[in-house]
Amino acid sequence: MRLNNAHDSVSLGIGDDCALIRPLAGEEIAITSDMLVEGRHFFSNANPELLGRKALAVNLSDLAAMGAKPIGFTLSIALPEINSNWLEAFSKGLFDIARDYCCPLIGGDTTAGPLAISITAFGALPTGKAIRRSGAKVNDDIWVSGSVGDARLSLAALRHEINLSKDDLSEVEHRMHQPIPRVDLGIGLRALASAALDVSDGLLGDLKHILDQSQVNAEIYLNAIPKSATLQKQNSEIQNQFAACGGDDYEICFTAPKNRRDAIYQLSKTLGLPLTIIGLITNKNNVEVNINILNDDGSLLSPTETASLLQSFDHFAS
Amino acid sequence: MRLNNAHDSVSLGIGDDCALIRPLAGEEIAITSDMLVEGRHFFSNANPELLGRKALAVNLSDLAAMGAKPIGFTLSIALPEINSNWLEAFSKGLFDIARDYCCPLIGGDTTAGPLAISITAFGALPTGKAIRRSGAKVNDDIWVSGSVGDARLSLAALRHEINLSKDDLSEVEHRMHQPIPRVDLGIGLRALASAALDVSDGLLGDLKHILDQSQVNAEIYLNAIPKSATLQKQNSEIQNQFAACGGDDYEICFTAPKNRRDAIYQLSKTLGLPLTIIGLITNKNNVEVNINILNDDGSLLSPTETASLLQSFDHFAS
Repeated sequence: MRLNNAHDSVSLGIGDDCALIRPLAGEEIAITSDMLVEGRHFFSNANPELLGRKALAVNLSDLAAMGAKPIGFTLSIALPEINSNWLEAFSKGLFDIARDYCCPLIGGDTTAGPLAISITAFGALPTGKAIRRSGAKVNDDIWVSGSVGDARLSLAALRHEINLSKDDLSEVEHRMHQPIPRVDLGIGLRALASAALDVSDGLLGDLKHILDQSQVNAEIYLNAIPKSATLQKQNSEIQNQFAACGGDDYEICFTAPKNRRDAIYQLSKTLGLPLTIIGLITNKNNVEVNINILNDDGSLLSPTETASLLQSFDHFAS
Repeated sequence: MRLNNAHDSVSLGIGDDCALIRPLAGEEIAITSDMLVEGRHFFSNANPELLGRKALAVNLSDLAAMGAKPIGFTLSIALPEINSNWLEAFSKGLFDIARDYCCPLIGGDTTAGPLAISITAFGALPTGKAIRRSGAKVNDDIWVSGSVGDARLSLAALRHEINLSKDDLSEVEHRMHQPIPRVDLGIGLRALASAALDVSDGLLGDLKHILDQSQVNAEIYLNAIPKSATLQKQNSEIQNQFAACGGDDYEICFTAPKNRRDAIYQLSKTLGLPLTIIGLITNKNNVEVNINILNDDGSLLSPTETASLLQSFDHFAS
């Protein structure tokens, strides 16, 4: 495979026993690994070009969640057969996004076997400036980028659980197949956010990882969770379930002190990307972390409503 | 999975979107990825503890070939089912060797799917000191560590291509299942070797990568290639084929100027590891790189003998 646009920090790419990364002075290296397996993460008839894009995108999303700037990636791939059409399309998608994000292929391994795509991606960030999951503080706002729930809506339509018009499906299905890693947002948040992660398994389930590691609780304003116009055509139960607990969104959920609001709205404007306050970090006075889900009037969701919402998480995201 | 002995360069291990590596001043990071797939790299009934060891060992061997000191690794694994006995044994083997080489697990991914094990390992080395494949010079000696061919002999016995006594098999089969990454050798060679790689596909085939990248040719003294006492019980044809072209040895093949011989023999003594001169780097005066294979008396192997030897490479190692 070709080695595309080199990066200053890559001192040796493909072709030796190892690749070499030489971080700039004062930088550390963020590392993330994701594996995609046929039948589990994508259908066997998945468009190989979109699959190539997505395989790297989900790793870039993890880099973004720490505030890291992509440097390069390694690819290990098991292929059941040499299908040159498939491989060409897969490579096109992969290298297109690699070029878009200045993240060249620097090494890897190819073998025969059931289709499995394993990527490890590397990013650089100033030493000590990584946005960890453990930094959320009481009274921090909870934010999410873009909108959530469309990838789940698209999956529901493809599974015939929900009927979507052709137009509506075309509005949302790119969210499932072509997630956009929020790399510039992550870099912009280094100086603003107290904690962050990317939303891959569902907003509330993923938020729990921040709460666990920060030892805090949260209140979530259910109706504040940003949803696309297409999702808003569904009934409120579907809207809330998909937005709060659907997976595959690859938005960034982050926390920040209230005095950063102006700066965060400015960043939103600069990036042309909506950033929305969806809740508040609260004191933890129990053993398990807890998310209180609130209606518009500030009242708690009833236990039945909460159970229904969270049940959807267990069902859809596991 | 537990995070074992941390390394100075690992500033954040498992549990966030990314791991973080903070290289020491003046160091660069070597990166290697290998994927092992059931049916291709190991039998379905493979001992899981040995498999766990080998999965990391083959990556450590790549680090060794560059002269890098292990820092940590990520593991992405697809598992067809949760078999706790299998997983416990696999983890034991994996973490035992991780501890032996101070190379902790720092991240990864687990998913359902046909068994596939994808490891990316990281090592540190002084900036600019990596031993590349491209540095071999005319008149350099060609060396190999330990002995080669036993892993291939073991495979031949397990495939019933060759009959080995139980004692003989037990002498060689650890070479197939438990390769020893030559990490200390690689570190010692940083200041001595001009080029190096690890022998995974077969000595002569792998040597060609050095020749290709260095744009040189080679003479190989066939009988000088180090073979174990067990392999030496076989007829000379088997001996030569397995030693010259068998795979899975994970020894280091390297080149070095002749004036380094004393220092290399001293390193051999310090490590308790035989290091053997097996050939000479020569001028390349043709388009394709070429390996001349020599008998004890300096005569060239006949074309028929050479073809037979190299045919074995094509047959066994592909």
